[in-house]
Amino acid sequence: MIIKNSHAVTKQPMTMPGAERVSMQMLCGPDDGCPNFAMRKFTVAPGGCTPKHSHDYEHEIFVLAGRGIAITEAGEKTFHTGDALYVKANEVHQFRNAGDGPLQFICLVPAFVHRPGGPAAGPAVAVDCACSK
Amino acid sequence: MIIKNSHAVTKQPMTMPGAERVSMQMLCGPDDGCPNFAMRKFTVAPGGCTPKHSHDYEHEIFVLAGRGIAITEAGEKTFHTGDALYVKANEVHQFRNAGDGPLQFICLVPAFVHRPGGPAAGPAVAVDCACSK
Repeated sequence: MIIKNSHAVTKQPMTMPGAERVSMQMLCGPDDGCPNFAMRKFTVAPGGCTPKHSHDYEHEIFVLAGRGIAITEAGEKTFHTGDALYVKANEVHQFRNAGDGPLQFICLVPAFVHRPGGPAAGPAVAVDCACSK
Repeated sequence: MIIKNSHAVTKQPMTMPGAERVSMQMLCGPDDGCPNFAMRKFTVAPGGCTPKHSHDYEHEIFVLAGRGIAITEAGEKTFHTGDALYVKANEVHQFRNAGDGPLQFICLVPAFVHRPGGPAAGPAVAVDCACSK
C-alpha cells in the first residue's frame, strides 16, 4: 500500500495554453503502478482557471476547497467545497476560481492519459478561452 | 456536466460483514453514466472500521477528514486528512477510524464493481477481522 501526504507531492505548473495560475500534483499515476485511473490534485490560485477545452476522456472531480465557476456547454454553473463533478468525454469545460482563496480539487482521468505517449505527454490541445474571456 | 453536492447524496450503510459504523455515498457511478471508474465517499464514525479483506481490483483513496489506521500486509500505518492511498488489487486492507471525529475519504474503484452483477452487487466477500481485533 502506498500512502502519500499530498502536501509533500511536487506541484507541477500547468503549462497547457489557457491554463492560468494552475498547478497539478500526481497522487496516483503510472509511477505508482496505478493501473486504471490516475488521481491528480489541482490548485487554482485566485483569478486563475483551467483551459477551456474538450478531450476524448472523462473527468471525475471532487472539490476539496474553495468555490468556482464551471464553464459548460449548458452555461456557467457554480460549485463549492464538497461538490462532485462529472465531465463526460468530449464535453467542453473550464474551471475558474471564483473565490478569494485557492480552489483545490481532485481530478481523476483514465490511466492512458498519463502513460508515455498519452494525451498528457503530447502537444497541448486546442483552447479558445482564458480566464478573463 | 453533472454537479452534485456530496452532502445531499444518500448515505447507504455498509452492510458487508466486518464493516462497523460505515456509510457510503455514490458520487459518480453507473446511474451517472460514469464509464471507467466509480467515485464513492465513505464516512467511518469514531470506533468504526471497514472490512478487512482483499479483492481483485484496486482502490485509489483521498482522505477528506479525520485520521485512521490502515491495516496492511506490511503492518499498521497511520493516515490523515490530505493523504492519498493506493491499495493494489488482491492486497489485504482495512481502515479504522483512529480519531474522535468522522473519518471521511473518497475511494475510487473500477466501474465494473458497481455494475449489475459486479462484486458490489454480489454476496459479501470473506472477512476475518472486525474493528476490535
